[in-house]
Amino acid sequence: MTQNVYDQPAFFDAYSRMRRSVEGLDGASEWPAVRALIPDLRGRSVVDLGCGYGWFCRWAREQGAARVVGLDVSERMLAVARGAGVDTAISYELADLETVSRPAGAFDLAHSSLAFHYVEDAARLYAQIRRGLSPGGRLVFSTEHPIYMAPTHPGWTLQGGVKTWPVDGYLREGPRTTDWLGARVIKHHRTIGTTLGLLIQAGFTIEHVEEFCPTPEQIAVRPDLADEVERPMFLIIRARA
Amino acid sequence: MTQNVYDQPAFFDAYSRMRRSVEGLDGASEWPAVRALIPDLRGRSVVDLGCGYGWFCRWAREQGAARVVGLDVSERMLAVARGAGVDTAISYELADLETVSRPAGAFDLAHSSLAFHYVEDAARLYAQIRRGLSPGGRLVFSTEHPIYMAPTHPGWTLQGGVKTWPVDGYLREGPRTTDWLGARVIKHHRTIGTTLGLLIQAGFTIEHVEEFCPTPEQIAVRPDLADEVERPMFLIIRARA
Repeated sequence: MTQNVYDQPAFFDAYSRMRRSVEGLDGASEWPAVRALIPDLRGRSVVDLGCGYGWFCRWAREQGAARVVGLDVSERMLAVARGAGVDTAISYELADLETVSRPAGAFDLAHSSLAFHYVEDAARLYAQIRRGLSPGGRLVFSTEHPIYMAPTHPGWTLQGGVKTWPVDGYLREGPRTTDWLGARVIKHHRTIGTTLGLLIQAGFTIEHVEEFCPTPEQIAVRPDLADEVERPMFLIIRARA
Repeated sequence: MTQNVYDQPAFFDAYSRMRRSVEGLDGASEWPAVRALIPDLRGRSVVDLGCGYGWFCRWAREQGAARVVGLDVSERMLAVARGAGVDTAISYELADLETVSRPAGAFDLAHSSLAFHYVEDAARLYAQIRRGLSPGGRLVFSTEHPIYMAPTHPGWTLQGGVKTWPVDGYLREGPRTTDWLGARVIKHHRTIGTTLGLLIQAGFTIEHVEEFCPTPEQIAVRPDLADEVERPMFLIIRARA
């Protein structure tokens, strides 16, 4: 089963104070890039894998989605999502992305924000998602970029006056353990090649691959984002079923 | 026009002593990975972009290709290729990948080894290649990996006893100037996302994306290849027209 640090009270409290927890989708720097890849949702059926507080589910409804299912491994997150308001077209369900299975041909869009890097068996997950999408349905997801995840010691270093991100182990795929918000978190490092290969094997057509770069406008508002030009933190992919 | 360091005598001499120049395809560590992506060539028409000494062109003929065209910007390289033996089914032509144009529907396979990172206008190049391929034809190419090419100071550094590759400027696309074999060489850094996006825009379907990793068998024979596990040097792509 997937780890579930979100139900550890101290972690949950720290996570709930993050910008993306407080401000929702607009608090996530990569959201405009992800949003640009979302097809017209009017009358469509949507599943969000790792829905957290349900921000994306509610946004999808605002865009006219007819039915939205939010899946998450954390009861606490789902409780917050359910508490955000009653909408009978949204259902929040407890699910582990390592074992989840979805019925065939049910969804027009599968979305996931920064959850897939916690999943060890990505081949299985992509196959399940593919099976759960209608023909021509889209999968749009963000995940931690392998450059960000690979290193033994992920962190900035000064190298002759230049801020650099020291990469090692990029081709050594497998678990990476880090401390995040006081919790021990296990992520699963895969190269971009592996991620795309598994999607293609699952029957997807690759439509868009983006290594997130903040826009000059974003950096003007949040100067700390300038570092993200030096090495990508997020990988964003759209694939067609 | 593309730079042409290969026609500088000192560079040409140094290049001609490299393992891949002396041993041909088998002297290139990434060749087994590339070869695995090459479709059946019997009776097929093949173009090699940046053919150098013509090793790939001759190999394609050995695999049964009916017609092979090798393109290169260097007269010296083409002279060596032409001097390697007479085969009327192979033609070597002077061409600049920055300006080359090919007739429609003529080739079943377009191949290129480590040449595209010298090309500034990749969108134009991919569109020309797409136009030159028969329906269902394949483009198989290797290029320098953006992790390898991006940094201000590309080179290994020891970081707390760990050999690391310091990345910066990954999202800052554009020219990178390096010294290689005594020549000043200009390469054009593009992210993987940009490369795949330009291929998709040109009408290609992405079939395979590989960030080259030497096999344990290769490392056993050539221990210096172990470093390639830490950060990828080559990106290998197969796309279908």
